[in-house]
Amino acid sequence: MAPPQTAFRHTDFAIGSFCERKRKVVRECTLLYQLQVLKDTGRYDAFKLEWHPSYDDKPDHWPVPNHLFWDSDVAKWIEGACYYLQEQSNPEIQSAVEELVSMIKAAQQEDGYLNIHFTVVAPKQRFTNLRDLHELYNAGHLIEGALAHHHFFQNNEFLDVVVRYVDLLCQTFGPGEHQKHGYPGHPEIELALIRLYEVTKDTKHLKLAQYFIEERGNPRGVDGRHYYSVEAEQRNEREHERPAYYPFVRSYWYQQAHQPILEQDTVEGHSVRAMYLLTAVAALQEFVPKQEYRSALERLWTNMTSKKMYLTGGIGAIKQWEGFGGDYFLPLGTDDGGCYSETCAAIGVMMMAERMLQVDLDSKYADIMELCLFNSVLTGMSCDGKAFTYVNQLASSDKDLSKREEWFTCACCPPNVTRTLGMLGGYFWTFHEDEKKSSAAVNVHLYGSATLKFQVGAHEVVLTQRSDWPWDGEVEFTLQSDQVKTGVNLRIPGWASNWTVEPAPEAKPVKGYLHLSPEWLSKNSTFRLRVPFSHRLLRPHPFSNQNVVALARGPIVYCVEDVDNQWVKDHFKSLLFDNEAQIKAENVTDDETKEEYVRLVATGKFRNVQASESCASFDVAISDGVNKLVYVPYYYRANRNGRGQMRVGLYNGI
Amino acid sequence: MAPPQTAFRHTDFAIGSFCERKRKVVRECTLLYQLQVLKDTGRYDAFKLEWHPSYDDKPDHWPVPNHLFWDSDVAKWIEGACYYLQEQSNPEIQSAVEELVSMIKAAQQEDGYLNIHFTVVAPKQRFTNLRDLHELYNAGHLIEGALAHHHFFQNNEFLDVVVRYVDLLCQTFGPGEHQKHGYPGHPEIELALIRLYEVTKDTKHLKLAQYFIEERGNPRGVDGRHYYSVEAEQRNEREHERPAYYPFVRSYWYQQAHQPILEQDTVEGHSVRAMYLLTAVAALQEFVPKQEYRSALERLWTNMTSKKMYLTGGIGAIKQWEGFGGDYFLPLGTDDGGCYSETCAAIGVMMMAERMLQVDLDSKYADIMELCLFNSVLTGMSCDGKAFTYVNQLASSDKDLSKREEWFTCACCPPNVTRTLGMLGGYFWTFHEDEKKSSAAVNVHLYGSATLKFQVGAHEVVLTQRSDWPWDGEVEFTLQSDQVKTGVNLRIPGWASNWTVEPAPEAKPVKGYLHLSPEWLSKNSTFRLRVPFSHRLLRPHPFSNQNVVALARGPIVYCVEDVDNQWVKDHFKSLLFDNEAQIKAENVTDDETKEEYVRLVATGKFRNVQASESCASFDVAISDGVNKLVYVPYYYRANRNGRGQMRVGLYNGI
Repeated sequence: MAPPQTAFRHTDFAIGSFCERKRKVVRECTLLYQLQVLKDTGRYDAFKLEWHPSYDDKPDHWPVPNHLFWDSDVAKWIEGACYYLQEQSNPEIQSAVEELVSMIKAAQQEDGYLNIHFTVVAPKQRFTNLRDLHELYNAGHLIEGALAHHHFFQNNEFLDVVVRYVDLLCQTFGPGEHQKHGYPGHPEIELALIRLYEVTKDTKHLKLAQYFIEERGNPRGVDGRHYYSVEAEQRNEREHERPAYYPFVRSYWYQQAHQPILEQDTVEGHSVRAMYLLTAVAALQEFVPKQEYRSALERLWTNMTSKKMYLTGGIGAIKQWEGFGGDYFLPLGTDDGGCYSETCAAIGVMMMAERMLQVDLDSKYADIMELCLFNSVLTGMSCDGKAFTYVNQLASSDKDLSKREEWFTCACCPPNVTRTLGMLGGYFWTFHEDEKKSSAAVNVHLYGSATLKFQVGAHEVVLTQRSDWPWDGEVEFTLQSDQVKTGVNLRIPGWASNWTVEPAPEAKPVKGYLHLSPEWLSKNSTFRLRVPFSHRLLRPHPFSNQNVVALARGPIVYCVEDVDNQWVKDHFKSLLFDNEAQIKAENVTDDETKEEYVRLVATGKFRNVQASESCASFDVAISDGVNKLVYVPYYYRANRNGRGQMRVGLYNGI
Repeated sequence: MAPPQTAFRHTDFAIGSFCERKRKVVRECTLLYQLQVLKDTGRYDAFKLEWHPSYDDKPDHWPVPNHLFWDSDVAKWIEGACYYLQEQSNPEIQSAVEELVSMIKAAQQEDGYLNIHFTVVAPKQRFTNLRDLHELYNAGHLIEGALAHHHFFQNNEFLDVVVRYVDLLCQTFGPGEHQKHGYPGHPEIELALIRLYEVTKDTKHLKLAQYFIEERGNPRGVDGRHYYSVEAEQRNEREHERPAYYPFVRSYWYQQAHQPILEQDTVEGHSVRAMYLLTAVAALQEFVPKQEYRSALERLWTNMTSKKMYLTGGIGAIKQWEGFGGDYFLPLGTDDGGCYSETCAAIGVMMMAERMLQVDLDSKYADIMELCLFNSVLTGMSCDGKAFTYVNQLASSDKDLSKREEWFTCACCPPNVTRTLGMLGGYFWTFHEDEKKSSAAVNVHLYGSATLKFQVGAHEVVLTQRSDWPWDGEVEFTLQSDQVKTGVNLRIPGWASNWTVEPAPEAKPVKGYLHLSPEWLSKNSTFRLRVPFSHRLLRPHPFSNQNVVALARGPIVYCVEDVDNQWVKDHFKSLLFDNEAQIKAENVTDDETKEEYVRLVATGKFRNVQASESCASFDVAISDGVNKLVYVPYYYRANRNGRGQMRVGLYNGI
């Protein structure tokens, strides 16, 4: 078989289905809303390379200028816009993309260099602070934007620009004596270069990605010393001058640069950077397979999902470095010791999972991918597509309410949701064809209502799934592949207590995927997967010291909000879950948000824990509480003008 | 009544009693051991003001040179030595004290200045970094050493030296135009100056203490700006150069200097500094009573004991700043998210409690003072008096075993235990006499076997208590005060589920103290307090997310150690406590350590929690465990050559 192909350009979502409704909001509302924000904040015109008053602002997080990511904000919007333009034309969006690309083109320097900050604000400081200043991160997003542009416009107008820039990067970075032995503080360009290579087939693009990955964390990269230390000295930085996000001097683990990736045993530091880096390593596997990289990927994935992941799929407990705490350190919110769970980080987990599934078809990756999508990622955008979250705590507090913002100074998350939904089909399934172009296989990772269509030689394969997922677990499949022997691998969710396929095949799942052979499918071109949905009680790992219980149903994790439980005053912190509670699922359509969802209504005795506060040891008393609790999907929180009180896990008894 | 007097010079501990055995170890072993260490490490000769090779060492915690505390190490040893010399002569110790004092005297500069580092290593940098460099902290310990010296030798040889130094400080610091508006980064001199004032009656000593306390945290101390910010600029420090212990720039809360003390609502930062500062504020109350200071003291005490104190009495959850985390952030050990609980900080809690009891006779202070003494303080020294702890976690981990060290680079804790036990009588009780010198009152805070003797006019009052506390709760008192009408206030421990006094008085306890009137005592000069000791289950506050249960008996908190429970492999982390366990107290005398103590043997089903690690949510299984658990007092841990596995709180069920 040839390498699997991500399927996002081959997928049509069914109108009115859950995922398509989310995508429609982005297509019809968020893109234009974000375009307006780009204009209002100065980002839209920034590639004109004129001075913007905000360039004088003191950085919120020294030494990172607040405008440093503007290139990427624009590039990610272009990328997302091109995905949606492919589906539905929109002259306003299309002409904005065209204007932006012409400005980007004009902003490129004679030698190919392309960056707003280092052209307008600090022109003599190119490549002098790879550790902190996101220069190559921006380059990565420009590449990804150009790839999307290339696909939609079917021209090289933007692609040529980034290829010229990459030429400069290929000259600048590498193992050569006169090259810089550096690598980006924020990974992103690595995976972008691999995606670029998939289009250009120019091996130097792949090699630069590989160089960045393999040189990273080399403790003797320059004259026997770490690249970042040498670079800092050359900037005349003092030893104890520390970026805001470094708790200690030389906290290179923040950038996953404390060791070569092969030697890392635990996933550390900034969680988005970690995910982008590991996604690139997984992508590199397809072209440069190495067992030791695969071992590192599996080791770090396992460390993350078993010891450093929230039950919403979120990652990152520590605000200061927007990243991982120690093993099992997973407090639900600020009041409990911290929780970050950045939207982009959950997107990063999906990206890594999607690539890992291509290395190793194991449902443990797809289970987490689904968990992230329906919970920690979708919670990042409001129902109307115009408000966003950056941090996704599992419990609110007076200090950090559960609420959404219109935009952020560091605006990575909003356009990241946009482009993720834009390529959502790529997460749903992958397909292969054999080298003789006579047979094919489809791996179905996620469920919903969508159609996958692809060519094998002269013939078309069409696989359709119809369901009310994530609210109902019955999925009807239809396969049309008369001329092509096609097999299908169906993911059986790890959280499913039971399931059936009808008609019943003989096969058993292997690593969580049920193989339906071409022979079986030729007799059963229509078949059903039935996964009964009922609520489940979720408890964090005991070592996480979170003595709480949460509710889930299907792929959806639930929370309680003050909108439905108006008596709450303390963010549900002292509320004791009743393990005997009766829990009923109810279909709801909200008048205002128009959201259709299943809520859970729990009936029981939910009492309040009260502890005397006189001494270092405590007496606990329990007082009367309430008899009814209404749970809504976590992704749906902060959509209904509440007071920002929310909690996923309730206290689980004493 | 006149102000209460601390009683440490009026107390004799009974030979063979628990506290006296601990004090004997210090008197006969620790003092000489520590003297040898002072000599071996260069501290002893440091006041000769010669260069020591270690002065070239790179600081372990920038910008604090490792040798910066040497003055205080010597001063604290002198202080402790003088307390014990008062009880028992020792020519070797006495001549060492004399030699040290003569070296200190010779080290004093012409203008009165006295500091090793700023004379030998950085002579031009006097008073240029109050924030970080412990100059005034050292001065404080020199004062306290000189006061102890003055009392024992009954001369002013050392006292005159420190008074000259304080003269210089009084000129240097204050509100005057040409004075520095600064205050020490590490409080200590404030309480030392108040103690000095108690001897000299020189109001400028009191006033300097008050100035340091009241100026502290003034956001507009110098030209409308914070003193530490101006001082840093004058040193040419860059904005983002951060001391190792600052998580962020200008983390002045580390030094409790983020706000004036009156405005502080929660106890923050470095826990030893916080306690020394608040002890000084409480001491200042006696001479400059102010309701707003009393309110701040009560507010911060309550915040600390109800939300930031471990059930051993330890404080400080965060290693980086050796101090407090957020409210209820109290993980048991490194593996759970961090625990510090420095020995000196627990001593600081005792110091604050002792002063608070003089402001307000409330057993809530004495309960915590007792908790600290028998647990988080005494655990700081081994049975043989030659090994120490600095950090006192409530659970060990592979990274931080439960073990003792012979010494520390920053050696604050070992001599602090020495001097605390030296003045232990001062924590046991306080006494007052009326102004006519005809009546008296004794407040009994702690129990043991000791005699308090003091003069009221020409007459002597003698109060004796005899008990086997902390192992047994029966205390026999005898009062001899024929000529002096004497009342006694007995603390009734807050943890006591019941208690009796025999013969039964009519009085009821007020704020935890039972008042026995002179009239009642004249008829009942011998009486008994009986507090039945049985084990108690302690649980941390539910909001601390420590779903554990610990055992206590009387004032002693227990732990499990691998020495007694040899099967342990994971620091008891996965062991599930059996709430139905039978618990039996057993008297033990250990052959090797010679320690006599009560251990608790728990019989029941102690099972192991096992959690599957495949996903962000977990299935918990429970496997067979053990039927017997042996608990020993927490203070006794790490005395018997174990593997360093220890835990106070066991997992409390799922």
